[in-house]
Amino acid sequence: MNASNDNIVALATAPGIGAIGVIRISGPDAFEIVNRLFKGKDLLTQKSHTLHYGTIVKEKKIIDEVVLSLFKGPHSYTKEDVIEISCHGSHYILQRVMRLLIDEGARLARPGEFTQRAFLNGRFDLAQAEAVADLIASENETAHQAAINQMRGGFSLVIKNLRAELIHFAAMIELELDFSEEDVEFVSRAALTQLITDLQTAIEGLIESFSLGNVIKNGVPTVIAGKPNAGKSTLLNALLNEEKAIVSDIPGTTRDFIEDEMVIDGVPFRFIDTAGLRTATDQIEAMGIERTHSKMKEASLVLYLIDLASDTIKAYHKQIQDLEKTGVPFLIVGNKTDQAQETLKNIVASDIRSVLITASTKDNLVGLKTKLLEAINLDRFKSSNTIVTNARHYESLVNTKMALGQVIAGIDGQVTSDFLAMDIREALYALGEITGEITSEDLLDHIFSKFCIGK
Amino acid sequence: MNASNDNIVALATAPGIGAIGVIRISGPDAFEIVNRLFKGKDLLTQKSHTLHYGTIVKEKKIIDEVVLSLFKGPHSYTKEDVIEISCHGSHYILQRVMRLLIDEGARLARPGEFTQRAFLNGRFDLAQAEAVADLIASENETAHQAAINQMRGGFSLVIKNLRAELIHFAAMIELELDFSEEDVEFVSRAALTQLITDLQTAIEGLIESFSLGNVIKNGVPTVIAGKPNAGKSTLLNALLNEEKAIVSDIPGTTRDFIEDEMVIDGVPFRFIDTAGLRTATDQIEAMGIERTHSKMKEASLVLYLIDLASDTIKAYHKQIQDLEKTGVPFLIVGNKTDQAQETLKNIVASDIRSVLITASTKDNLVGLKTKLLEAINLDRFKSSNTIVTNARHYESLVNTKMALGQVIAGIDGQVTSDFLAMDIREALYALGEITGEITSEDLLDHIFSKFCIGK
Repeated sequence: MNASNDNIVALATAPGIGAIGVIRISGPDAFEIVNRLFKGKDLLTQKSHTLHYGTIVKEKKIIDEVVLSLFKGPHSYTKEDVIEISCHGSHYILQRVMRLLIDEGARLARPGEFTQRAFLNGRFDLAQAEAVADLIASENETAHQAAINQMRGGFSLVIKNLRAELIHFAAMIELELDFSEEDVEFVSRAALTQLITDLQTAIEGLIESFSLGNVIKNGVPTVIAGKPNAGKSTLLNALLNEEKAIVSDIPGTTRDFIEDEMVIDGVPFRFIDTAGLRTATDQIEAMGIERTHSKMKEASLVLYLIDLASDTIKAYHKQIQDLEKTGVPFLIVGNKTDQAQETLKNIVASDIRSVLITASTKDNLVGLKTKLLEAINLDRFKSSNTIVTNARHYESLVNTKMALGQVIAGIDGQVTSDFLAMDIREALYALGEITGEITSEDLLDHIFSKFCIGK
Repeated sequence: MNASNDNIVALATAPGIGAIGVIRISGPDAFEIVNRLFKGKDLLTQKSHTLHYGTIVKEKKIIDEVVLSLFKGPHSYTKEDVIEISCHGSHYILQRVMRLLIDEGARLARPGEFTQRAFLNGRFDLAQAEAVADLIASENETAHQAAINQMRGGFSLVIKNLRAELIHFAAMIELELDFSEEDVEFVSRAALTQLITDLQTAIEGLIESFSLGNVIKNGVPTVIAGKPNAGKSTLLNALLNEEKAIVSDIPGTTRDFIEDEMVIDGVPFRFIDTAGLRTATDQIEAMGIERTHSKMKEASLVLYLIDLASDTIKAYHKQIQDLEKTGVPFLIVGNKTDQAQETLKNIVASDIRSVLITASTKDNLVGLKTKLLEAINLDRFKSSNTIVTNARHYESLVNTKMALGQVIAGIDGQVTSDFLAMDIREALYALGEITGEITSEDLLDHIFSKFCIGK
């Protein structure tokens, strides 16, 4: 355990006015510092995990009535002594109380410093610590579930198991070094090759999961395309308003909506705006359409709107042929069923990739959502497989994979044990970076500086 | 005690992303409801004022790791059973947890409903309950101190004492009614007159304090005036930037600044913008100057800027004479000392109502602030006298005063005891409205609807 010798303080709740605001202080003198300002019971004689009502007083003036939560180390978030002070949620009061704590010897915490201390004191590993920030930032069910799995150690366990196997072999190889003059092999090269191959497969699986992890964090990139006036904006607004209605019904939890980002059945989608698709009539529009085509290629899915009211059957077939050429998965969305031409409508409906809606009246949005979730293979998102969501982890996994490739090449080339050992150690290093067995101060600073203050 | 038969839930901390967010639930089934979702210790067997770490789980999925604060009624804010759930501060999680609590039988709290229950259950009186909202809204030392005094019952005590005296006399008068045929007087009319007069004096004091209370809530109305180019905006910006620097140095407590509102040594000022003062050259400008003069009359104080660099001595004297005519207290602020004409500077400096500064370089802003605080009679703000800050209380006090006037008139006119009793009861009613001995559902709804949700 890395004992800190100073005491950190920060506002733990969101800034802004609320009924209450919570200030958190952690460190060896947390109890003494708060005790000097608190009028109520003597905190030094109280048990951990108890709540105490009283007042914060300075020079006989009452600053606030508060409730204190006492956590004695190691039974606290940071494993240090921690007090959480629940104040009335006014800027003025929270600032006054923090100022008093600072005057009594605490200092302002850096972003993520509470979690950093928790990590340094062995409460959890680095991947778990990083998941805390992901958890706070999570805005949908899928991202939330990935973060909570990671925080609860699911991902760390996978990495640790891989690493343990590798450590075992490394130890055996290094033992060979001690007997190098005798030319013994403690580890069968065939068995080592098998292990390394198995590890590579596991790591490749994790590396591949990152594209899903990325989607979870940033949303499934989805293009809404179609000819001008097919109803693209109307559809986007209809979907967005429905999501707002679902999400914002609990006061105090409303959030800003990013246009074009929405969550459907727990899965985040990021809708990409496009220029209307038609034969370009001038150069500038041609560029816009060019961009649309290139955006469609980045997308995981295209929602292609057909105007059932005014499109011709010939144009419809032409559009679908063009779509198929892009190679991007697509859904055909027949819009304006209320004014549809009967023949066109029947033709569109007969394609199993299609769904019919009226965006303006929100008719059959449910059907569209069902199709959408089918199209992106929802099960991937709901599976309990370990998913890599963090770019830093992805990078370390790629480094591990390269180092393992070196080990295989070494075995094939019959290099000596010391070279093999070196490559295995490199792979161990990369894996250890993920869970924080291997860290540097720079790395930690970089990771925790992205946290919010108070966490 | 007014037992509620339902359970209310709300986010107690500010909306937005923070390290933690706290959800509060209050009601007879609070423990059972949370217990059904909580994986950890059995909450039903735990003591009040204890903290419990565990997870919120729904259908075997972990929603969050949380810490629960248990408060068993009547030892809680509402005097009911209360649990505060400290979650990770993500919108998604807070909303999920609230939704789960609602699914288990709680309902969303209305604004101020926790405090309303605290009032109905006798935790404090109505004036104290109202002070909770003032406390949360308080943005400076003076407003904060007034709110905390009121919440701690200082104001209520004054009202209660006045009311108790009146009740005593009312009882005696009403006793006379029982013996009305015998024509006895249990209360000497002279003694009653004396009491009523004393009460009137006390109530007039409170009524007068409201203008100070209003200033505390809204700031001392201060006009910065002077000829065009005397440096009014420069001064305002210089003062505002200094305040920002003082207030915003603790991350997480920054707040939006309202231009023209600032706090100097704990006292809020509201600076009122004016058009430059000079002899009007056209009709529209004349109207602007007219408005300036009328704003000056509303002000508690005028800061009158003199441009020491370019004003003439004759013009200076003219301006001071005009100022004196308005009858509003003023400070002469000689600006641009760095480019000052020596004679004008000496003349201005010789006036004890003056202070010399250079707004552009912030030179001697300290001297200006000292003068400013002297001019508004700072002691009024720092005294521990009871101050009425609430318009509702003000109105009830005015009604009380009128009813007391009727009592005096009745005594003078030698009306019968039953009429006196009626007038006294009216005064009692008005006083009782302040502390909530007399309430109606409408009144309570009106008061608590102005609270934030979660309080």
